[in-house]
Amino acid sequence: MSASEQTNWQSVHDEVLRRIHTREWKPGDQIPKEVELAEQLGCARATVNRALRELAAEGFLDRRRKAGTRVATHPVRRAKLDIPVIRLEIEGRGQKYGYGLLLTERRTPTPEICANLGVSAKSDMLHISSLHLADGKPYMFEERWVSIDTVPEIVDADLSKISANEWLVLHAPYTKGDISFSAVLASELEAKILRTHAGAPLFLMERTTWENDAGITSARLLFAPGYRMHSAI
Amino acid sequence: MSASEQTNWQSVHDEVLRRIHTREWKPGDQIPKEVELAEQLGCARATVNRALRELAAEGFLDRRRKAGTRVATHPVRRAKLDIPVIRLEIEGRGQKYGYGLLLTERRTPTPEICANLGVSAKSDMLHISSLHLADGKPYMFEERWVSIDTVPEIVDADLSKISANEWLVLHAPYTKGDISFSAVLASELEAKILRTHAGAPLFLMERTTWENDAGITSARLLFAPGYRMHSAI
Repeated sequence: MSASEQTNWQSVHDEVLRRIHTREWKPGDQIPKEVELAEQLGCARATVNRALRELAAEGFLDRRRKAGTRVATHPVRRAKLDIPVIRLEIEGRGQKYGYGLLLTERRTPTPEICANLGVSAKSDMLHISSLHLADGKPYMFEERWVSIDTVPEIVDADLSKISANEWLVLHAPYTKGDISFSAVLASELEAKILRTHAGAPLFLMERTTWENDAGITSARLLFAPGYRMHSAI
Repeated sequence: MSASEQTNWQSVHDEVLRRIHTREWKPGDQIPKEVELAEQLGCARATVNRALRELAAEGFLDRRRKAGTRVATHPVRRAKLDIPVIRLEIEGRGQKYGYGLLLTERRTPTPEICANLGVSAKSDMLHISSLHLADGKPYMFEERWVSIDTVPEIVDADLSKISANEWLVLHAPYTKGDISFSAVLASELEAKILRTHAGAPLFLMERTTWENDAGITSARLLFAPGYRMHSAI
């Protein structure tokens, strides 16, 4: 896309947003048709379409095939969270990345892991625990199960040199994933690994990914006390 | 956009993703130019452009003006979080929404709030505490500061009937916002309000919004134990 095209849909976007903000167009109002707007603003219909799609994605507009486009009555704002490889997240903070493999074993998965991944417990999985460090301090404790059926190559990976997190990103791209965030208390073991005290508040990220319908991995990422996930809205 | 156009860029998207997943195009590889891809796939260049933009937004491609488009070496996956009005979040779970205003007062903002909003402490702000309930049980405790300079109409709002969260969404749309997530322990007061025990792990969402450069509001949203924020990646 050229710079001028970019400016163009962006300026339509801003003009529509101005009308919403000044309440020239009120919540629930139907807005003019794309062709009318294109004529008013002196641009191509495709440019208006691009701007309106963006505004709908941002939650300012409701677009319905038959009912037309309306100003959202209760805009749902959408935050975009970047989920990088942990090494890059730490390096991006200007800190030195460290990594230690704590455990790797083939084992029958727990019923909870089978349920997460939607698989039966017939096959062993790879169970991996590791610690990620920032400037030598515990940053995140990763406990992960990887399906050997879906990703057989993982058994040959040297997970003492590369984290399962990074290996999977490079070798087992997923087509579908679930992520959830919550607050939990550190157990005795988790506290010991993260060098804090039992009962400390920990930010927990749980991720499960699939390649089509085949479960790849289910991971529990526990961040050391003080961790804050941040985004623009 | 018509249904056939939708299918079209979506199928280009899926074909490019297939080539990345099968490693026909490997991490770091430069991919063919848009015109070449359009010719290969028998579609308009604009369709290829739309698909590649989507794949870049999803983190599969790196697009650089001069270096061309490459397969991302370390794909940063992006999770989209929907941030609805709390009432709609609760009703969307099929639960009955309840709301109680705990406190509203004009007060000099704390230095922390001034720093968050980028304002000086010269003017009073509205300080509001309220509790949101799901099926009669505490769901989220909201503590919020609203700039009367930026949103003077808030002093006339009946915040015992409509939550500041919902009033602001309807009357003070923002152009810029910050959001962060962390895990904290419940204080004695917070535990009492959320009907839990001091030291329980709570999910904390902090939000600050601006209309252009004027600070609107800074809020601390504390969710009752057990809260999980969920998204697809």
